[in-house]
Amino acid sequence: MTTALPAYDDLEAAYTLLRPMVRRTPVVEVAGGDLGVAGRILLKLEMLQHTGSFKARGALNTVLRMPEGTTGAVAASGGNHGAAVAWACGISGIEADVFVPATSPPEKVRRIEAYGATAHVVDGYYAAAYDASRRWAEGREVVAIHAYDAATIVAGAAGVGIEIGDQAPYARRVLVPCGGGGLYSGTALALRDRVPVIPVEPQRCPSLASALDAGGPVDIEVSGAAADSLGAARVGDHAYAVARELGAAPLLVSDDQILAARRVLWEQCRLLAEPGGVTALAAVLAGLVDVRDGETVVVVVSGANHPTIPDDVVRPVSS
Amino acid sequence: MTTALPAYDDLEAAYTLLRPMVRRTPVVEVAGGDLGVAGRILLKLEMLQHTGSFKARGALNTVLRMPEGTTGAVAASGGNHGAAVAWACGISGIEADVFVPATSPPEKVRRIEAYGATAHVVDGYYAAAYDASRRWAEGREVVAIHAYDAATIVAGAAGVGIEIGDQAPYARRVLVPCGGGGLYSGTALALRDRVPVIPVEPQRCPSLASALDAGGPVDIEVSGAAADSLGAARVGDHAYAVARELGAAPLLVSDDQILAARRVLWEQCRLLAEPGGVTALAAVLAGLVDVRDGETVVVVVSGANHPTIPDDVVRPVSS
Repeated sequence: MTTALPAYDDLEAAYTLLRPMVRRTPVVEVAGGDLGVAGRILLKLEMLQHTGSFKARGALNTVLRMPEGTTGAVAASGGNHGAAVAWACGISGIEADVFVPATSPPEKVRRIEAYGATAHVVDGYYAAAYDASRRWAEGREVVAIHAYDAATIVAGAAGVGIEIGDQAPYARRVLVPCGGGGLYSGTALALRDRVPVIPVEPQRCPSLASALDAGGPVDIEVSGAAADSLGAARVGDHAYAVARELGAAPLLVSDDQILAARRVLWEQCRLLAEPGGVTALAAVLAGLVDVRDGETVVVVVSGANHPTIPDDVVRPVSS
Repeated sequence: MTTALPAYDDLEAAYTLLRPMVRRTPVVEVAGGDLGVAGRILLKLEMLQHTGSFKARGALNTVLRMPEGTTGAVAASGGNHGAAVAWACGISGIEADVFVPATSPPEKVRRIEAYGATAHVVDGYYAAAYDASRRWAEGREVVAIHAYDAATIVAGAAGVGIEIGDQAPYARRVLVPCGGGGLYSGTALALRDRVPVIPVEPQRCPSLASALDAGGPVDIEVSGAAADSLGAARVGDHAYAVARELGAAPLLVSDDQILAARRVLWEQCRLLAEPGGVTALAAVLAGLVDVRDGETVVVVVSGANHPTIPDDVVRPVSS
């Protein structure tokens, strides 16, 4: 299997194109001691991005690269990708139809509509919404926007890596949450030959680890606390190709580790990330990453679109 | 009335002393259009500071400047100052006793204790806790740490202004929440002769505006959505002196404007600030500040210690 990966020039061109419309998300340095580890942790706050996740970058890059004359786009998503497509189309004057599984919380549907898109709620799970979106698109002049496995999505997400290269040139490692692999592959390509980028998956959504074991992307079961944002049933060909080429070894974190990381992030920094947004932090807190004194490790916090109200985070046990 | 204000050298010395222990909080640029205004808004995320508010800076500067041999400190606070004193003493090996009014939420007491301080819950409101703290201190060798009206508190808070000067040298104005005035006076002194710093008070806690009207600090009634963090019954002499000298005209925002600003900050940036933390943002959103195209205005978001769970923010009306 060969997948054509975007060249560094493509990543830079995407960044230049997107820069006026996306946020350059800040980093905050946190002493390792605050998190119970050595060294320094630089949190890359991509959760502050438009629509509350890194997905805005790839979606907008895809929309801006659609063939001239395109008037409509379609996507299937119950979450971050749907909101990102709705937003990107909204600011570009493109009609968006987003197919949402009935299992998604009403708030996510509301957000998609608030960005000006038409939400179609489909009975069943993600696969049903995806199939419905493809049937609907047949015979219509619309562009389907994949949630993670497209060169334009990867090149858009690479902006996270380009910014990290600028904000933390001295970093020894970069850890990123990984679901379908758009963020991982974009970041890793942007920083290749400069700093290792390590993908971190939930144990219950191990699409990249499974692909590396199997010698190629395979369908897997997904579940758990972070499935709403990282629950890709099959990792992208792009992410697989990048991980193979760069020799990446994904780290895996448990639901307990993910939820603990979310609580620590709130307690220490008053940041309220979604479960899928903190898998990379969870790996650090769980001791899966060897951070040494004097070293800086970058941890990407990728999103903050919550499936439920995290009462236990905002108000911890009050005696 | 004359109050000796710290010189710029004092502010810089405090910053140098504190820098290894406090966080350099990041800024994020948000397009004015995202907030319904012109220009660019640079949010200074001081809510990411240790203990969840800017109070950590002044408290630590005060603790580090205590007379040699000091072994104990005492403070009265139901909120951010209490946590800040507990934290500053905790990392400095000083015993802290914090007197908390019984009206404070149990979570705030828990936080103070989590930093290693002894919390004394006192029946009544803040004044009762303050009186109890002073009675307790009599005859004991402890240093009382005022919540806002001390040169060391002002000089510590000035770090916010020093960082802004570095992070946004091109800013046209800086807006800060104002309660007792520690943050306002520190920031304004750090940036004097460079950029105007505008204090923003809740309409229901107008301690600085009342003092400027009366020709000196006066006792006022405080209430409303932000009283838990900005409800100083009397503005500090330092803040009053700075405001008089610099000719500051405080802006006043309503509870509705404050709560709306908190919702907008979550919707646009996934940041969950406390009501008192967003008065400056509320002034911008309410159109009280004339932000022009091409101009950058810095808005300090000063804290994120919530008195209650903001369900309406994290999960806005769902369908």
